[in-house]
Amino acid sequence: MTDHFALPADSTDGEVAAAVEAAVRAGTAWRAASAADRAAVLTAVADALTANAETLWRIADSETSLGETRLRGEIVRTAAQFRLFAQVVVDGGHLDAVIDHADASAVPPRPDLRRLNQPLAGVVAVFAASNFPFAFSVAGGDTASALAAGCPVVVKAHPGHPRTSEAVAAAVRTALPDAALLGLVHGFEAGGTLVKHPRVAAVGFTGSIPGGRAVQALIAERPDPIPFFGELGSANPVVVLPSALRGDVTALAQGFAASLTQGVGQFCTNPGLLFVPDDEGLLKAVGESVSASSGGPMLTPRIKEGFLSGVDRLSGLSVLAEGSAGDGELAVSPKVFTAGLEEFAEGLPEIAEECFGPAAIVITYRDAADLPEVLGRLAGSLTATVHAADPAEAADVLPVLKALAGRLIWNGWPTGVAVSWAVHHGGPWPSTTAPAHTSVGASAIARWVVPVAYQGWPAELLPPELLEDNPLGIPRRVDGVLS
Amino acid sequence: MTDHFALPADSTDGEVAAAVEAAVRAGTAWRAASAADRAAVLTAVADALTANAETLWRIADSETSLGETRLRGEIVRTAAQFRLFAQVVVDGGHLDAVIDHADASAVPPRPDLRRLNQPLAGVVAVFAASNFPFAFSVAGGDTASALAAGCPVVVKAHPGHPRTSEAVAAAVRTALPDAALLGLVHGFEAGGTLVKHPRVAAVGFTGSIPGGRAVQALIAERPDPIPFFGELGSANPVVVLPSALRGDVTALAQGFAASLTQGVGQFCTNPGLLFVPDDEGLLKAVGESVSASSGGPMLTPRIKEGFLSGVDRLSGLSVLAEGSAGDGELAVSPKVFTAGLEEFAEGLPEIAEECFGPAAIVITYRDAADLPEVLGRLAGSLTATVHAADPAEAADVLPVLKALAGRLIWNGWPTGVAVSWAVHHGGPWPSTTAPAHTSVGASAIARWVVPVAYQGWPAELLPPELLEDNPLGIPRRVDGVLS
Repeated sequence: MTDHFALPADSTDGEVAAAVEAAVRAGTAWRAASAADRAAVLTAVADALTANAETLWRIADSETSLGETRLRGEIVRTAAQFRLFAQVVVDGGHLDAVIDHADASAVPPRPDLRRLNQPLAGVVAVFAASNFPFAFSVAGGDTASALAAGCPVVVKAHPGHPRTSEAVAAAVRTALPDAALLGLVHGFEAGGTLVKHPRVAAVGFTGSIPGGRAVQALIAERPDPIPFFGELGSANPVVVLPSALRGDVTALAQGFAASLTQGVGQFCTNPGLLFVPDDEGLLKAVGESVSASSGGPMLTPRIKEGFLSGVDRLSGLSVLAEGSAGDGELAVSPKVFTAGLEEFAEGLPEIAEECFGPAAIVITYRDAADLPEVLGRLAGSLTATVHAADPAEAADVLPVLKALAGRLIWNGWPTGVAVSWAVHHGGPWPSTTAPAHTSVGASAIARWVVPVAYQGWPAELLPPELLEDNPLGIPRRVDGVLS
Repeated sequence: MTDHFALPADSTDGEVAAAVEAAVRAGTAWRAASAADRAAVLTAVADALTANAETLWRIADSETSLGETRLRGEIVRTAAQFRLFAQVVVDGGHLDAVIDHADASAVPPRPDLRRLNQPLAGVVAVFAASNFPFAFSVAGGDTASALAAGCPVVVKAHPGHPRTSEAVAAAVRTALPDAALLGLVHGFEAGGTLVKHPRVAAVGFTGSIPGGRAVQALIAERPDPIPFFGELGSANPVVVLPSALRGDVTALAQGFAASLTQGVGQFCTNPGLLFVPDDEGLLKAVGESVSASSGGPMLTPRIKEGFLSGVDRLSGLSVLAEGSAGDGELAVSPKVFTAGLEEFAEGLPEIAEECFGPAAIVITYRDAADLPEVLGRLAGSLTATVHAADPAEAADVLPVLKALAGRLIWNGWPTGVAVSWAVHHGGPWPSTTAPAHTSVGASAIARWVVPVAYQGWPAELLPPELLEDNPLGIPRRVDGVLS
């Protein structure tokens, strides 16, 4: 693959429409493809990404400064997502196949009913994120899961890495049966045109809360409001309970600083709130770890500007520690503020708003019994974390955290999201717009399918997944019993 | 139970807030209840409805004129819904339990992750429908599924049957561990107050498209836009293919007239569009069946007014037949218009809008090959139906109908919705606001749960559903394999 991708121009309305319409045409064969064929294509996409890693990371590094190690790792992750969805498609559990045989004695009487998930009718629009030029961008989890579901995709590229976006699209298309299954458009206006196109059936989005609200408003203006799956902002509270002080406090502080500064803090799972006992030793250790930490260049001037204004918003608080900035025009330094639990509670909800980048507030409490009330007032989050040596100590905060976040971490850190069957990367507003759904892991495919029930249909017109003898061997529920 | 329920006054804002807050308090124990305990309560609710059927149908008949047979049948259906959800809760499949054991060799490395659905944090608000005073009202499918999920409920009563609403709530509460688990409010303003209450976590709604749009707009004004599950309007196209003429044409015509006039046409699955070959014999039979049919009193003056203005909207079309009105001030007569396929296509989309009540358009076509293009332009529907003697003849319309509707019926009629595991009562906008979901059947519970993933948690803090030895014996996916 060439490494010369010109800076793309903004897409015109006509180009957006052409991409969607070409995707619709390409989608007819794709949605009808067998599970085995679709899985083979997903695997081929993973192979194409891997084969082009050398070219791809260099282009991405020139646009994002994220560095070779991180970017190569992210390409591996991105390929792994396609491989997981190849497994998901062949497994067939996501089709949620259910058969009820006719039962005249049921109340009300029951005809023969067979239900199966099918791909959404139309195109999935995907808004790429700034912070993962591979894993949450053109070939990210939204695209991989939508293709796996059987839907064609048109991506609105993130302006932070437009050439990377073109290069990734080119690599993916070499593996697709029809290049139009993955459209790519550029520019702010193009995003709006895409969301309003009548053949767009759903939207996936990773970005800011204001950005997500803007897309939601555009959808509300459609004659047919379509489903919107946005992953927006998240404060990711971490609660250190008193028994954690019995452990290695230095390691705890270093773990926090490492999670806070990973990727210059530009992770949706970045720990922005650290609740700790009012303990001098722990505060000192946290301060030292943060002071010893380095920031680095942020992804774009706009993101740096947002970070600085977020930090400015917290300037009324005491500063616990600040790291070093590192080199470059876009570089920022990690900064950690501190507040007492009461002061923090008085500042809610604004004080707890996500500050995208390596900034956090360390909130000190005197009595862990005061935590549930304050934690219960936090906005929804992708994650919540507890550190404790004694599980019994967590019993009071656990019910609050279960209502607050989609993933709960025990004695660990929220950054680093597994790609697996059980993972959930979602949560209540504003962390997402659809709390029942995840944008990472096997279940991400559920966003792009809808059920259809066949009542009394002849076998010759049923999809194979619903035939009496289950020729594809997928999991099914028959007359109420899973098999 | 007494049969004297006074006409309730509109609820004040304070009363709405009190109902929600009492439901929140009652919800703490309810969401923590074991599956077995919750199932026992759901069964007790079914028993309470059945035990009070004699009182309930009389109150409902005085408000809706739907008659003893229909109303008694609807109470049986309503109780059956609670019994199905008792099974669903014990089965545990709706919890979608998934366990991934830690795997350091995975890419990216995988910690121990265990995911489970849990009830939404907060109260489910339910807007009752006019047309089913039991099955889609205070104790309808939305309420039953939300209680089954572990959520407390506050219902906004439909003004068409306020005393029935009070009577049903009283009966249900006798079986609940805490009466506040089912709140009930009245009045237009109360509905808005309910939707905007901060402790309301999701809204279920059965009603009109403008009503649904209004609720959606209120939700968009919330600081935290919450999930909205609305079942709105549906035209329910029925396609009679040429080979169906080889069968009993009189029976076909009678089947249509019966489905059209059932419940005075006040069903969301009422067949509003009948596509037929331009065949004199069939048109004559349909005309005769409709002429021989009776209407009856509609549910409320407002619904009658809406029906008459809907019929008026179609007055430019030829009238094929009209039935008799029956008695009463609110009575209307069934009315069927006719149009050629071209004339109909020119009138889209307005001509195909649902006219709630016993009215339909019979659309005649000359060539079945012209059908897919026109059907593809219809708005989303809950159902689509095909009549044919030869399955092969349906191959061209089936892909279009799969994209159009959530339930496809073969040689039957759309009215009559089974309560079962496989049923799907949903579809694309405007038939619903959330096409992946159903408001009838076992899967309706999925609207009121959200996943939570536990990463690295000690066994003593995990819910029993996620313990290694699966003490509750629920279906789970472990390391990618269903068991």
